[in-house]
Amino acid sequence: MLTLEMIQEAQTALRGIARRTPLDPASKIAENLYIKSENLQQTGAFKIRGAYNKIRSLTPAEAAKGVIACSAGNHAQGIALSATMQGIKSIICMPAGAPISKVEATKKYGAEVVLVPGVYDDAAREAARLAAEEGYTFAHPFNDDYVMAGQGTIGLEILEQLPEVEQVVCPIGGGGLISGIALAIKSLKPECRVIGVQAATVPSMAVSVQAGKVTTVPDGDTIADGIHVLTPGDKTFDMVSKYVDEVVTVTEDEIAAAILTLMEGQKTVAEGAGATTVAACLFGKVDISEKKTVCVVSGGNVDVTTLNRIITKGLTKTGRLVELSTKVVDKPGSLIQLLQVISDCGANILNVTHAREAKVSDVGACLVTMTLETRNEEHVEKIKVAMQNKGYSLL
Amino acid sequence: MLTLEMIQEAQTALRGIARRTPLDPASKIAENLYIKSENLQQTGAFKIRGAYNKIRSLTPAEAAKGVIACSAGNHAQGIALSATMQGIKSIICMPAGAPISKVEATKKYGAEVVLVPGVYDDAAREAARLAAEEGYTFAHPFNDDYVMAGQGTIGLEILEQLPEVEQVVCPIGGGGLISGIALAIKSLKPECRVIGVQAATVPSMAVSVQAGKVTTVPDGDTIADGIHVLTPGDKTFDMVSKYVDEVVTVTEDEIAAAILTLMEGQKTVAEGAGATTVAACLFGKVDISEKKTVCVVSGGNVDVTTLNRIITKGLTKTGRLVELSTKVVDKPGSLIQLLQVISDCGANILNVTHAREAKVSDVGACLVTMTLETRNEEHVEKIKVAMQNKGYSLL
Repeated sequence: MLTLEMIQEAQTALRGIARRTPLDPASKIAENLYIKSENLQQTGAFKIRGAYNKIRSLTPAEAAKGVIACSAGNHAQGIALSATMQGIKSIICMPAGAPISKVEATKKYGAEVVLVPGVYDDAAREAARLAAEEGYTFAHPFNDDYVMAGQGTIGLEILEQLPEVEQVVCPIGGGGLISGIALAIKSLKPECRVIGVQAATVPSMAVSVQAGKVTTVPDGDTIADGIHVLTPGDKTFDMVSKYVDEVVTVTEDEIAAAILTLMEGQKTVAEGAGATTVAACLFGKVDISEKKTVCVVSGGNVDVTTLNRIITKGLTKTGRLVELSTKVVDKPGSLIQLLQVISDCGANILNVTHAREAKVSDVGACLVTMTLETRNEEHVEKIKVAMQNKGYSLL
Repeated sequence: MLTLEMIQEAQTALRGIARRTPLDPASKIAENLYIKSENLQQTGAFKIRGAYNKIRSLTPAEAAKGVIACSAGNHAQGIALSATMQGIKSIICMPAGAPISKVEATKKYGAEVVLVPGVYDDAAREAARLAAEEGYTFAHPFNDDYVMAGQGTIGLEILEQLPEVEQVVCPIGGGGLISGIALAIKSLKPECRVIGVQAATVPSMAVSVQAGKVTTVPDGDTIADGIHVLTPGDKTFDMVSKYVDEVVTVTEDEIAAAILTLMEGQKTVAEGAGATTVAACLFGKVDISEKKTVCVVSGGNVDVTTLNRIITKGLTKTGRLVELSTKVVDKPGSLIQLLQVISDCGANILNVTHAREAKVSDVGACLVTMTLETRNEEHVEKIKVAMQNKGYSLL
């Protein structure tokens, strides 16, 4: 059973190991908003706190054999670095299709990586098999008291860095992070609210809390891969039920917009899971009008090759990028006329395609698709109205 | 004439106005490397230091009339916010094609924005005309002692935050930033090296220093718009000649790679100009093997709509993204055979186009272009060799 003392002990143990990450006002994003930047943590995410605290709890016999984990993400890197720092062997099972960057990073931290054909579940089975066969200790990513205690040190830091905090917002995947933080906060400052955030497409803890028992949700897509967990742990479920005031969800578009807002406003790179807390505040899921609110930005390991897609999504969500399609007659000058309408509205044209062989019904018409840089939603509406007033139908 | 005392006075004046930005080790990027994060400054760049210091130097009569500047970038925002904070009117002339985001940001800081038809030079002329006509004080972006003194406060902070610093690397556009920093550093710690970095496509200060006199270079393209200056100032030229040890240049690809490295390694967003210093260290233009080196990352206001292009460039430069084209015979199964070769090499396929109507000479052949996620340059070479061994010619 997790206790405040365990979290305090973890804090002492983590001194000089985990970075005491900055807690800064994010006044360019919103008043009352503060960011606890665990994306600036070692390995780019909070996971090293729990991982290190778990590994230091091993008996000498366990330590001599080594640890094993299953993850293609931040848990893998946290375990790898923590084990290496303590001179302990670590094995990480990953599904064979894991991004090359994650495999390389995990190896660099000193782990032996086993690529298992199939998906995550296959890798998890292989990890369990190897643990049983070779006597490795299996390091669970969240449903473990030592892991929760390590993550809980973030709660202690928040209270030290901003004693007047009134609300803490924290992502939930399996629930390890919020369990530790909530216990720390509620033990020392019970009047401070603690709110959890999940991806709307994978709301396992939200559903579980509502059902009053651990519940598995159907799989869904999310860019917040760090909190893509279908079944919460039983230990974490108990902690959340007891100490968390509310669990809210955010959409994919909201997460993308928050990643963008953090890049532009705070000049900081957050991964999907890390940005969910800011998304919840930006889109009215959490009321920050009257409470000093700390958003835990839990990690920054977003695959740069997917950032492009996220940026486009985020710009669209905030009305700063719009794709509009219409038909023009197929004769000289008609494209120019259309572009003049757009230009008169003060939008910048980023991209135009003008296709004669498109699936528009009438011969003699061309499909024009324009990507425009706009100011905001209102601006987009103005352009649409201007186009319709000139007789262009929006497709 | 700029003096150390002027910089020290500026430091006092800027207390509570300009943020004392963090100076952190960047050990994930390189040993001995430290980042002075002016991208986390108010308005996202160092410019507010010089702008505020200039505006506070106005006489009451000048202040009553207001200031005018010409810029579509960080200088505009620095002047706008500084003037507003001091209750002074500001007018910013921008070329009409300036990005909407820059116009909006400048207005938000309280400036009146005048959009001038034409290019930068037209806007500059209009600013000069308005200054003469209305009696506004023209705020030069770099060739001004008060501006240089404000930027020089960064040099004082570096010495306070890392007294053992042995080398400071700083971007050069017009030269205002490095002039202040170099004077501060060389006055207080003469043995510390100061190195300037320019974009290789617009090396105005480098050429001027070599020629021994202020020289204008032909215009060139650069993603480092913050240092896109064709003629250095005479005051800044004198300071650089006297106090800067060396001026080096970096290519566009190197800048892009550095932006990516800062995002992945430091989770921080730098604009092109800001990343030049890190590029210089990453690509051997500055030797950091034996010297504790501080890179000034001067700003973070990169247009997110152009970040996509930069990320792609940066991934390509570091061998983690490659586009390869070849021909396959136009019959069932031939594309699969090619993809098998790629897959056997362990590369992830991000994108494939298979075009029958391409400009390949022989009828009966298809052009295949693949975008691949790769590990590094060596990995790319391996794939090329494997393709050639199977009879695929690289186009």
